[in-house]
Amino acid sequence: MSLPSHVRLVEVGPRDGLQNEAQPISVADKVRLVDALSAAGLRYIEVGSFVSPKWVPQMAGSAEVFAQIQRKPGVTYGALAPNLRGFEDALAAGVKEVAVFAAASEAFSQRNINCSISESLERFAPIMAAARQHGVSVRGYVSCVLGCPYEGEIAPEQVAAVARELYAMGCYEVSLGDTIGTGTAGATRRLFEVVAAQVPRDKLAGHFHDTYGQAIANIYASLLEGITVFDSSIAGLGGCPYAKGASGNVATEDVLYLLNGLGIETGIDLEALIGAGQQISRVLGRPTGSRVAKARNAG
Amino acid sequence: MSLPSHVRLVEVGPRDGLQNEAQPISVADKVRLVDALSAAGLRYIEVGSFVSPKWVPQMAGSAEVFAQIQRKPGVTYGALAPNLRGFEDALAAGVKEVAVFAAASEAFSQRNINCSISESLERFAPIMAAARQHGVSVRGYVSCVLGCPYEGEIAPEQVAAVARELYAMGCYEVSLGDTIGTGTAGATRRLFEVVAAQVPRDKLAGHFHDTYGQAIANIYASLLEGITVFDSSIAGLGGCPYAKGASGNVATEDVLYLLNGLGIETGIDLEALIGAGQQISRVLGRPTGSRVAKARNAG
Repeated sequence: MSLPSHVRLVEVGPRDGLQNEAQPISVADKVRLVDALSAAGLRYIEVGSFVSPKWVPQMAGSAEVFAQIQRKPGVTYGALAPNLRGFEDALAAGVKEVAVFAAASEAFSQRNINCSISESLERFAPIMAAARQHGVSVRGYVSCVLGCPYEGEIAPEQVAAVARELYAMGCYEVSLGDTIGTGTAGATRRLFEVVAAQVPRDKLAGHFHDTYGQAIANIYASLLEGITVFDSSIAGLGGCPYAKGASGNVATEDVLYLLNGLGIETGIDLEALIGAGQQISRVLGRPTGSRVAKARNAG
Repeated sequence: MSLPSHVRLVEVGPRDGLQNEAQPISVADKVRLVDALSAAGLRYIEVGSFVSPKWVPQMAGSAEVFAQIQRKPGVTYGALAPNLRGFEDALAAGVKEVAVFAAASEAFSQRNINCSISESLERFAPIMAAARQHGVSVRGYVSCVLGCPYEGEIAPEQVAAVARELYAMGCYEVSLGDTIGTGTAGATRRLFEVVAAQVPRDKLAGHFHDTYGQAIANIYASLLEGITVFDSSIAGLGGCPYAKGASGNVATEDVLYLLNGLGIETGIDLEALIGAGQQISRVLGRPTGSRVAKARNAG
């Protein structure tokens, strides 16, 4: 058993999390959340998404959020930019790093973004070019890597092909997302084995949802495969564990608890993190999705 | 990575689970639960506890439950027998296998059963003798193996010493319980490494609580250490995930989902298991503690 000594957590709560919560929250509350997260020691925070508020009302005001947060040195504040228009808006808001989003499943790509996987990759080309021109780094997401709600199982080779394309196009890191949370530890290990043959292991990240309660085990399995970057969501934002159809982002607190237990460095303070989660849970008026936060509050 | 091909799940919901739920349920509901669990394919069910109903009202009627369940061939129906009086009551109820309970923490032993660890082991001697005489097998539990609410960390060597005693006294299997759920995957592996030097690996079981969201990862870690028996609780009985102070038994459904994903045989049917969990959750009037059951119901 050889585990990495350091791990970087990519906090996706303010974007992937809040985007999937029922009600939009105010710019002021988003700013407070992002600042609390950077104060807790997170070095990468996905702050918002530059999309039409008509389609994603939860992400309205992302430019204002970027204008009002306290930028802490050494912290990357990223944003999702699904198209060139979004990229330009992000650029205007002073964003230095964007993320693009592809699927490993044809059916999911068609239903979610209305085009094939290869068409979606072609659409990223102008974003990649503009990003290069403006010195903006681009992170790539691949969704449905361990299962698709329409196709069921997804071959690791298919994931590897999409990840390789994103990496070849210039994404400095590719995050593999178990969007529906159906993956288990063995499949996670096989996935990273296969993808690492196409994209260097240290350019890969894991993005797990806890829908079936497997996320922490999958992260442990990924660590055993040498993966050192993981996406997670404060308080499990993005999938209220008490609601039907919970999408279930793994809670950052629970991931950090695992990493602390394994003696892996992250630079993040658990108590401050729990505080940030409590604050946003109060704003949303719902209990935290983090088991660690719940256990601490009960103690 | 080498994983076992078969795993045996020990269902502790009717005993360890219901004992820790707020309200007692009727004998009829307990019988229905046990029969639903055996029908789902579980081969070991801890049915009840022979203790004074003055101390544990939730376990009242255990003899009636044993009298009314449909005994399925090949299924072991166990009971907790904390003392000789309990053992004799169990024997009178036709119980063929009992469990005894020790702690790995001196402070926990003192506060929980009012005696030292070695005194508690001495008290088991007459139970072991009576069990041998009547051909009853005895399973041993050790609690607080990865942390104690009073002492904090517990040395694996301390756990190994207690486990070795129980095994030497005649327990055919010793289940190591992370009673407060604070353990993580690395500590779990070290624990089994150390204990396996004193008790054969195939005589050890893992008993994890999901209080900090680590149980499934700890089970995966245990599998990597060659452990093939795990305790779990249908619907996560014994720790409502919505309540403060949840003790958080890992849900059998979530463990089975992991094992199915790893291709490990158990003989248990997931859909039938989810049905059994839904039934008892309705009786208790609370949502299931199983993430898998919740995800399936939402789909």
